[in-house]
Amino acid sequence: MPTLAEVAPALVEAGQRMDVHGWVGGSAGNLSARLDDETIAITRSGVHKGRLKETDIIEVRLDGSPVEQGVKPSAETLLHCQLYRLFPPVGAVLHGHSVAATVLSITAPEILFSGYEVVKAFGYTTHETDVALPVYDNDQDIARLAGVIEPQLQLTPPIGYAIRGHGVYAWGTGVEHAYWRLEALEFLLDCELERRRIK
Amino acid sequence: MPTLAEVAPALVEAGQRMDVHGWVGGSAGNLSARLDDETIAITRSGVHKGRLKETDIIEVRLDGSPVEQGVKPSAETLLHCQLYRLFPPVGAVLHGHSVAATVLSITAPEILFSGYEVVKAFGYTTHETDVALPVYDNDQDIARLAGVIEPQLQLTPPIGYAIRGHGVYAWGTGVEHAYWRLEALEFLLDCELERRRIK
Amino acid sequence: MPTLAEVAPALVEAGQRMDVHGWVGGSAGNLSARLDDETIAITRSGVHKGRLKETDIIEVRLDGSPVEQGVKPSAETLLHCQLYRLFPPVGAVLHGHSVAATVLSITAPEILFSGYEVVKAFGYTTHETDVALPVYDNDQDIARLAGVIEPQLQLTPPIGYAIRGHGVYAWGTGVEHAYWRLEALEFLLDCELERRRIK
Amino acid sequence: MPTLAEVAPALVEAGQRMDVHGWVGGSAGNLSARLDDETIAITRSGVHKGRLKETDIIEVRLDGSPVEQGVKPSAETLLHCQLYRLFPPVGAVLHGHSVAATVLSITAPEILFSGYEVVKAFGYTTHETDVALPVYDNDQDIARLAGVIEPQLQLTPPIGYAIRGHGVYAWGTGVEHAYWRLEALEFLLDCELERRRIK
Repeated sequence: MPTLAEVAPALVEAGQRMDVHGWVGGSAGNLSARLDDETIAITRSGVHKGRLKETDIIEVRLDGSPVEQGVKPSAETLLHCQLYRLFPPVGAVLHGHSVAATVLSITAPEILFSGYEVVKAFGYTTHETDVALPVYDNDQDIARLAGVIEPQLQLTPPIGYAIRGHGVYAWGTGVEHAYWRLEALEFLLDCELERRRIK
Repeated sequence: MPTLAEVAPALVEAGQRMDVHGWVGGSAGNLSARLDDETIAITRSGVHKGRLKETDIIEVRLDGSPVEQGVKPSAETLLHCQLYRLFPPVGAVLHGHSVAATVLSITAPEILFSGYEVVKAFGYTTHETDVALPVYDNDQDIARLAGVIEPQLQLTPPIGYAIRGHGVYAWGTGVEHAYWRLEALEFLLDCELERRRIK
Repeated sequence: MPTLAEVAPALVEAGQRMDVHGWVGGSAGNLSARLDDETIAITRSGVHKGRLKETDIIEVRLDGSPVEQGVKPSAETLLHCQLYRLFPPVGAVLHGHSVAATVLSITAPEILFSGYEVVKAFGYTTHETDVALPVYDNDQDIARLAGVIEPQLQLTPPIGYAIRGHGVYAWGTGVEHAYWRLEALEFLLDCELERRRIK
Repeated sequence: MPTLAEVAPALVEAGQRMDVHGWVGGSAGNLSARLDDETIAITRSGVHKGRLKETDIIEVRLDGSPVEQGVKPSAETLLHCQLYRLFPPVGAVLHGHSVAATVLSITAPEILFSGYEVVKAFGYTTHETDVALPVYDNDQDIARLAGVIEPQLQLTPPIGYAIRGHGVYAWGTGVEHAYWRLEALEFLLDCELERRRIK
């Protein structure tokens, strides 16, 4: 299993790539990677995710508590922990705020991707499928929000999910894989937004 | 308190980041930071803010007059000075011209952000709030414009403000913080513009 | 005729340029160049085309089979091979997934470029011409898709073609020329999408 | 007056900056600078303007003929020469193909900028003015096109001009100044396009 020193550079770079796309404006977003069965590495609160230093990545237990005293993990750490807890293959989780995800999740009651080759990035073998992206109402009580999300995660693991007016969560077996799936998800959201523009 | 030599590199870099977003096209925009109770550092007139040299940052008193003879501060220096004068915690002010701010301020009588997680960048604790961005009519008489703005700044300090057909002003405790708030503000403006596109 | 060592750096760089435009999100897209009458160099499957290493470029025969055992060429290799087989001057083929190509090919029954100076990039001597971009229904059976495309390629060689909900194929005498034509094609698609936005 | 060795690096860099904005896709666009009363430096035909080498900049007389035998200047050289001939202060001319200029010039009979602070980049002292951007029908006979443009250039020198379905011409006292004015012009075109999107 990877050490903090091994995953930190990958998370720093993923943050830079997300920043180029405009998904981590201000101090938005958070990024994490699994270290072992009990701990993950996650970005700390109050830093710009496009200019992370490796020291901005801290260790947190799967219950959300920091391993070292005095460091403050991201407010949304519990949503990361939930994914690692439920899905052993998940090695990294990325959360960003894109304009497309924010606007679509506010204006559309649901988001459905239909007819896109790019869904194959999520393991589908054909474009001839309809893929839903769940949208959950935003909630500042993250534990409560996690509770709302958990049944669907367990019942029908989605390709990612959106929080209304907030952004998306994407994940993968490692940081690079999670980043690819985030790119694919944002590409699909850009396409959907575009389709609504030209109607 | 910081010296000119300390804030100049931060302003140069903030200009580069604003340029990547397209907020300082031509010689648009101006950037400043507080030096002490009486003086600020601000970009001089007639330079490209995406390619500032440290010598393009000059010292100006809070009444808008340059400390050294023969240098010409930005025409909008008084709007910067006003913010430093009214709000002691303000350590930096950034002004840029984005397409979103320009078009929204021309076409919308007022700009209201509703339901956005990103308003938390401005100290709000929840997305369940409506946040207004004041829009003032553009005026080439900057002293007169400052006089129009001042009552609202004193009565209800906003998260920033827009000048119609012109751009936005954002501020923070230092250059990095001001830049984060500018990114958050432009993100919200992009979202609002997008919502109007798809209606 | 060029060697793999000669074309690989050009393909790596073309992938980087495509990535800057957002045409190879996730592990999308594939890039190739002709080596000789019987073999081509093409990107292998499952890598990010914006961060190719030269070892990600493999040799494939014109029937789609890899020269070396144990490497997996892109699933769409046959579409590349078809172009090299039919058109001796073709020296490189680029395939990417852009938002514009994806959305236009889904929403428009056909794509026609009319009145654009940029069509001169494809050898037309005047903007006073209508240039069609064929759109084919996506098909996960690539051999069958190639069969559908072949008659039109032979009858009226187009400037490129789109696959519905998927992306575009562009080609040229070499990697640089193919990239120019891809840029011109995506520019035209961006213009067409824009025209539909403002109607 | 500047030498070719002095202006070439500035033109190379201006091409790179135009490329970042997407204004010189394929081998589109051309860039020039005045050398003396009789000659200019201009990009040669058939090169990518975002990756110019200094040897891609050649000397041309004001009648459009190359100083050295065997080099081929841009097809639109005469439009550059016209501006240098008519306006002695003009030191550089930049021509690019943007999506905004292409689409607006095709869909709008005329382009008028009204209420924009950014018009001050062109010497206007207030935003309270209406500034027209002339649009000319595209013509592959550049000498004839120049003849159509000349009367208006002489009568009412505009801030630049657009050629329908093709792009814009911008100019300034030197390469940097011309680039600023091009950025300001494209900003205004982006704003106008956006206003048409949200109506």
